[in-house]
Amino acid sequence: MSGNAPRQLHLNINALHSGFVPSAWRLPHSDPNVFLDVNHYVRLAQLAERACLDAIFLADNAAISDQLDMRPITALEPTMLLTSVAVATTHLGLIATASTSYNEPYNIARRFSTLDLISGGRAGWNIVTTADLPSARNFGHDTVPDHATRYARADEFAALVKTLWNSWDDDAFIADKSSGRFVDIEKVHPADHRGRFFSVRGALNLPRSAQGHPVLVQAGASGDGRELAARHAEAVFSASQSFDESRAYREDLNARAARHGRGPNAVKVLAGLTTIIGSTESEALRRRDELVDLIPVQYSLNRIAGTLGVPVDSLSLDKRLPDDLPLPNGGNGNHTFFNATLAQARAHGYTVRELIRALAGGGGHRVIVGTPEQVADDIEHWFRNGAADGFNLMPDVLPDGLEAFTEGVVPILQQRGIFRRAYEGKTLRSHLGLSVPEGAVLDTH
Amino acid sequence: MSGNAPRQLHLNINALHSGFVPSAWRLPHSDPNVFLDVNHYVRLAQLAERACLDAIFLADNAAISDQLDMRPITALEPTMLLTSVAVATTHLGLIATASTSYNEPYNIARRFSTLDLISGGRAGWNIVTTADLPSARNFGHDTVPDHATRYARADEFAALVKTLWNSWDDDAFIADKSSGRFVDIEKVHPADHRGRFFSVRGALNLPRSAQGHPVLVQAGASGDGRELAARHAEAVFSASQSFDESRAYREDLNARAARHGRGPNAVKVLAGLTTIIGSTESEALRRRDELVDLIPVQYSLNRIAGTLGVPVDSLSLDKRLPDDLPLPNGGNGNHTFFNATLAQARAHGYTVRELIRALAGGGGHRVIVGTPEQVADDIEHWFRNGAADGFNLMPDVLPDGLEAFTEGVVPILQQRGIFRRAYEGKTLRSHLGLSVPEGAVLDTH
Repeated sequence: MSGNAPRQLHLNINALHSGFVPSAWRLPHSDPNVFLDVNHYVRLAQLAERACLDAIFLADNAAISDQLDMRPITALEPTMLLTSVAVATTHLGLIATASTSYNEPYNIARRFSTLDLISGGRAGWNIVTTADLPSARNFGHDTVPDHATRYARADEFAALVKTLWNSWDDDAFIADKSSGRFVDIEKVHPADHRGRFFSVRGALNLPRSAQGHPVLVQAGASGDGRELAARHAEAVFSASQSFDESRAYREDLNARAARHGRGPNAVKVLAGLTTIIGSTESEALRRRDELVDLIPVQYSLNRIAGTLGVPVDSLSLDKRLPDDLPLPNGGNGNHTFFNATLAQARAHGYTVRELIRALAGGGGHRVIVGTPEQVADDIEHWFRNGAADGFNLMPDVLPDGLEAFTEGVVPILQQRGIFRRAYEGKTLRSHLGLSVPEGAVLDTH
Repeated sequence: MSGNAPRQLHLNINALHSGFVPSAWRLPHSDPNVFLDVNHYVRLAQLAERACLDAIFLADNAAISDQLDMRPITALEPTMLLTSVAVATTHLGLIATASTSYNEPYNIARRFSTLDLISGGRAGWNIVTTADLPSARNFGHDTVPDHATRYARADEFAALVKTLWNSWDDDAFIADKSSGRFVDIEKVHPADHRGRFFSVRGALNLPRSAQGHPVLVQAGASGDGRELAARHAEAVFSASQSFDESRAYREDLNARAARHGRGPNAVKVLAGLTTIIGSTESEALRRRDELVDLIPVQYSLNRIAGTLGVPVDSLSLDKRLPDDLPLPNGGNGNHTFFNATLAQARAHGYTVRELIRALAGGGGHRVIVGTPEQVADDIEHWFRNGAADGFNLMPDVLPDGLEAFTEGVVPILQQRGIFRRAYEGKTLRSHLGLSVPEGAVLDTH
């Protein structure tokens, strides 16, 4: 992107199986098997690519961490799913979630590098530390590891992965048939890392990609999470419920990044946004109500209680949330959704029943219900006034909620000059306006 | 396959980047970039599928464990590569290697289950314990973990992965839109595993596939390795250099499997076989010599010295190997290639130079040089007389060495009635004549 081009919006599709609303699978035309169907994800990616979106994003849990009896879960492993998507697309960015708590740095560096090379430089890694107990219990723990330890591990992990990604100088690969020299191993550098959590000799067995290395993405809301983002992330997914909160978050994050020596707007803030779109506002509201009415009440109560770390029977549908709620797990819980859920309830004085409707089922992300024009207005307002650099789109139902967005909202954003009509480059870094990182990254651990 | 059908040969293509001979990348028509090119692997898989082969097999190292200055290495992560291959093929089995020493059971169960579901029941897992030092140093170790400990961990790991693969009863998934019940969680069973190496609560977040679960594959040559295969493997890759040795190995393995209560021929033995094919024997020998002459001598010397665990300067090109060689790393090395290399040298009284030529560069697998007819004769002899159930094919050069096999050798094997002309089923288990495993596997740890 040239330096004088107008600032452009970034849009990812968060391809959460049947859609963000937990009852999406129950609609008459929904196929409940899509959470196990690679073709579903390929179809979503191709829809997104036709609309010139920046990337497809896949969340993840290495556990059954939602209520499987009532809705689909994240199931197929995301880096593998995106490898299939990579060969069926040409431009779309491919962002997968992977945990620093339950993986090894060498394996993660290698898998994201594999995705980056197979896709021609379109990979991104969403770094999570994984706060849920079911995941912890699948990896040798009886309790969730302590919040500070998880983030210290994530920090060392991310720095080490960057070092591994930069193992090969860009001119290391020779492949000179006449001399028989394949790689100049003087230009392939061991990591020689010995830190608090990891000892890794390196080098990685893969060179850099067309975009240098994968884009680092994160979603931290806590102090530790923001510091991790400020040190490493090039894009963050936020769960802000209000314009003011999101703008303050974005400013705080970039101020923190500047303190780590990074340039202005080094971190792109992409706000989570669930869209429920109708051709009129009342049609959209009817669609929302139909979807919410199909969610078992018990599901939403369990979800909110889990996020807030309170017993389900402490919630009454027609009362407000209890006052003075501490973060669950003695401060070790997931700040993102705890903060977002509380913010939504407090800002409007919602009862639990009203909160469920506003959140379309109890997840912590912001929900907007309206016409394509109304959705575009909201997006433009946040974008032009510094509350977001873009959005991580979480349509109510997939694939049709995505189609409603790409056919209804994207053309309006294009007409207003804030969203591309064609890709300018072929890498995720190009779409996000990020430069190719230098080869050498100092590992400070 | 019906019970009265004649016994059929099994053939896998071992898709080792540019080909098994280390100089394959140096031939005039070779593209040295193929080790980083997903399309190369897709092309090989499609060639193999047209010839009705059982599976594509991908070896792996989570390290730079060969001499990268002189030849390509295993680079792109195999489960991800096979996910791309899965969507470009319809019948071919997909076998990837993954280490039990440097992964977590929940992650491995999930990744192979993902491949199995995406491919419609075509996945196989080649279980390795990883004996090389460069890999150990990428995962927190200064030395290679002890042989017995690696195998004890692999045994617990494999049993636990099977338990996780069978987490869901086959009727657990309901997806009843009217009642809102998605899965009957009474039919999704935690593993509740607490063992010597792992504590995993489960359940896996994925149901079983069209073939129940992935096929378990292994390549053990040591006593511990054979016991691991006898307990868990449904197919093994062997590196036998002679007919008698391979027949003895196959008999020993099936006797061990019987002692674990498994039926006759529970384990299919697929012998590693490098083919160098010409339209006449002298053309094939010329091709072999051309390829061997393009391998730097230092490469082959390093390779043999590494396999045998001796200093390179203890080897003289025109002398025989030193007598009385103990297994490297105080008994912790890789038995498969140590045994195979020694067997080849001793059987023929080869000098080191002759050994390099016979092994086509110093790897431990058997090499056959000849016409399609000669290759077919050798395969048929081993197959009909109990030395092998099939072969893990390692063509000299890829893709053309595979084409020489599928166009030249496969039609002869088909004419002789020992190899299929069409797939009878769509799963890897179907190709291998293996039954779908029962849902409940007792975890004895």
